[in-house]
Amino acid sequence: MAIITLLTDFGVKDHFVASMKGVILGINPEASIIDITHDVPKFDVLRAALILKAAYKWFPRGTIHVVVVDPGVGTSRKPIIIQTKNYFFIGPDNGVLSLAADDDGAIAAREILPNGESSYTFHGRDLFAPTAAKLGRGMSFNEVGPVIVNYNRINLPKPTISGNNIIATAIYIDSFGNVFTNITRNDIDVKYGSQLLVELENGARLTLILEKSYGYAAQGESLAVINSEGYLELAVNRGSFADKYGVSPGQSIRLIITN
Amino acid sequence: MAIITLLTDFGVKDHFVASMKGVILGINPEASIIDITHDVPKFDVLRAALILKAAYKWFPRGTIHVVVVDPGVGTSRKPIIIQTKNYFFIGPDNGVLSLAADDDGAIAAREILPNGESSYTFHGRDLFAPTAAKLGRGMSFNEVGPVIVNYNRINLPKPTISGNNIIATAIYIDSFGNVFTNITRNDIDVKYGSQLLVELENGARLTLILEKSYGYAAQGESLAVINSEGYLELAVNRGSFADKYGVSPGQSIRLIITN
Amino acid sequence: MAIITLLTDFGVKDHFVASMKGVILGINPEASIIDITHDVPKFDVLRAALILKAAYKWFPRGTIHVVVVDPGVGTSRKPIIIQTKNYFFIGPDNGVLSLAADDDGAIAAREILPNGESSYTFHGRDLFAPTAAKLGRGMSFNEVGPVIVNYNRINLPKPTISGNNIIATAIYIDSFGNVFTNITRNDIDVKYGSQLLVELENGARLTLILEKSYGYAAQGESLAVINSEGYLELAVNRGSFADKYGVSPGQSIRLIITN
Repeated sequence: MAIITLLTDFGVKDHFVASMKGVILGINPEASIIDITHDVPKFDVLRAALILKAAYKWFPRGTIHVVVVDPGVGTSRKPIIIQTKNYFFIGPDNGVLSLAADDDGAIAAREILPNGESSYTFHGRDLFAPTAAKLGRGMSFNEVGPVIVNYNRINLPKPTISGNNIIATAIYIDSFGNVFTNITRNDIDVKYGSQLLVELENGARLTLILEKSYGYAAQGESLAVINSEGYLELAVNRGSFADKYGVSPGQSIRLIITN
Repeated sequence: MAIITLLTDFGVKDHFVASMKGVILGINPEASIIDITHDVPKFDVLRAALILKAAYKWFPRGTIHVVVVDPGVGTSRKPIIIQTKNYFFIGPDNGVLSLAADDDGAIAAREILPNGESSYTFHGRDLFAPTAAKLGRGMSFNEVGPVIVNYNRINLPKPTISGNNIIATAIYIDSFGNVFTNITRNDIDVKYGSQLLVELENGARLTLILEKSYGYAAQGESLAVINSEGYLELAVNRGSFADKYGVSPGQSIRLIITN
Repeated sequence: MAIITLLTDFGVKDHFVASMKGVILGINPEASIIDITHDVPKFDVLRAALILKAAYKWFPRGTIHVVVVDPGVGTSRKPIIIQTKNYFFIGPDNGVLSLAADDDGAIAAREILPNGESSYTFHGRDLFAPTAAKLGRGMSFNEVGPVIVNYNRINLPKPTISGNNIIATAIYIDSFGNVFTNITRNDIDVKYGSQLLVELENGARLTLILEKSYGYAAQGESLAVINSEGYLELAVNRGSFADKYGVSPGQSIRLIITN
């Protein structure tokens, strides 16, 4: 039984997502279709790439991940499929697949060729969904279309680390208002209880304790955690760090670790 | 294995949709339940009918489509089921099923009779879901209830076309802000690159090029496409035509095609 | 085939819910995963408990209900599982499971022990989802972890009833704006057509008729119904009672029944 995930910026107010699911079930009635999210802000390729990277690896080996955040649909950007060590990724060649595919280890990529019945404006329904459904039913990766040598990539900023001084970036803000930095567990030498001096782009300065989880700070107080994706995260217990301090994705964050 | 779709105005903040799914799985644990949307604006029967018409046909033959946008629940409006060439449609007899059923070709309709255990306020859970689940498990259409001779219909406005002059209507605005007109591909003689002179209800006049897809216009620029449902659509590349020009469903749109 | 439901305050904009589903399918690819809702207001344990109580019982016997509204994740609050007459409930021991578990009849409860690979901030993915998946695949309840003698409970206010005079509480407002009181069908002696004199916390006084369903009142008019969960509900036909009269959960409502 194939597992096919969907990640789009379509929202769920219209018929778009359902049409894709109908197409998949028409080809592969046994497919198990899982929504990653359809609430990516319209055309936000970077955010979709980050959500895919956070979600893909929790699915069983062989899962087919379909992403449609595709402002260039119907133009020269190619519809592609990437085979990685454990998964398949299907979507437009605009970088949206690249963070996850590179993270898992890409093996090969192929172009998905439009056929005469494809619309120009909805490749999700007319190209990506059918390709996923056929692959899940046994079509081989090699049958999809011609090999492409490379695919487009998104480059995430990397933190600048000199000893305990770090210049980082806010890369993702979740719906709780937690701010994911681009610093990972392996980048830094901290332990629970360490103090972090934080300077935000708007000049605000904070001293945060690295806690195991949110509830170790008082309600409404700020803290830092190593979050479930392994990133250093700035948070407020039962509140929104992003709202409280006006942080948005892409802003720089300076930190000094004082153990 | 039965496929049952759900389309409601319940939203997903409450227990309503889940209760329907629980009832379906209690009767038919193998059913594959697919959400079309639950975010129809409350009581907007026309919009639900249009979404159903856009989505239903992408599902495999035999799919059972359940719609609950039902301001008259528990009153004299009848709960019905319509059998069409390829599908079953279940919901209130307020027109919400009619655009899709007529599009696929209705064969017969029956009334679903409440039983002693039905609530008066939630036919979705107590009548529509069980009927769908039983039908998917093998109950025959004829067992559902008495034949009804006719069902209520929604009449969509048709465009007035005199040569290259068209008076159309905005029938649907999607979550991107794309405006679906009631002009279909077959109504008009245009080719990609054709110019359309457009006059909106608020007096705004625009000249749009018919493009294959959004990305052929510059970012922020307006264009027209034949969309994936076959309608002439007014759009902004990476923007919202409806917001930019203040268009809402039901407004008239005048067009002149100048090839 | 196991049925596993999910109820969280994660929203669906991020990867959190999908990660849980991936974990479940990795352990139990045949599981049928149903969303109750992910749109509980952040940290609103009471509302989540009420939604669970309204939804759980419509699912087939043996369904595993997972709830993650968990402001204390990673702190001393315990991850637990409760076995009831017909279901399993999995989540944090903060009361969120208690209304449903007590309603169905609790048989036993056990603690779910974190293992070395659990994150401190996402027990939904690392503890609750795997436990549900394993249980659905045949792991016995007794293997989950040590017995706990009791679990934390939420106490709902009860109405004060003296003859026809009732002091009630607004316990839940649904997305239509219907106000669920804590008065159930069995608490009072009313019949359809009865008059209710209602006084709200802001001093507003209304006379409402108890109708079978919304459509028996004129559009925009207020009414009362016994709703599909058996509660006395204050509503506006095709409108929002809560918005019209400024009612929010927890407010008191005085009623006099005048048959």
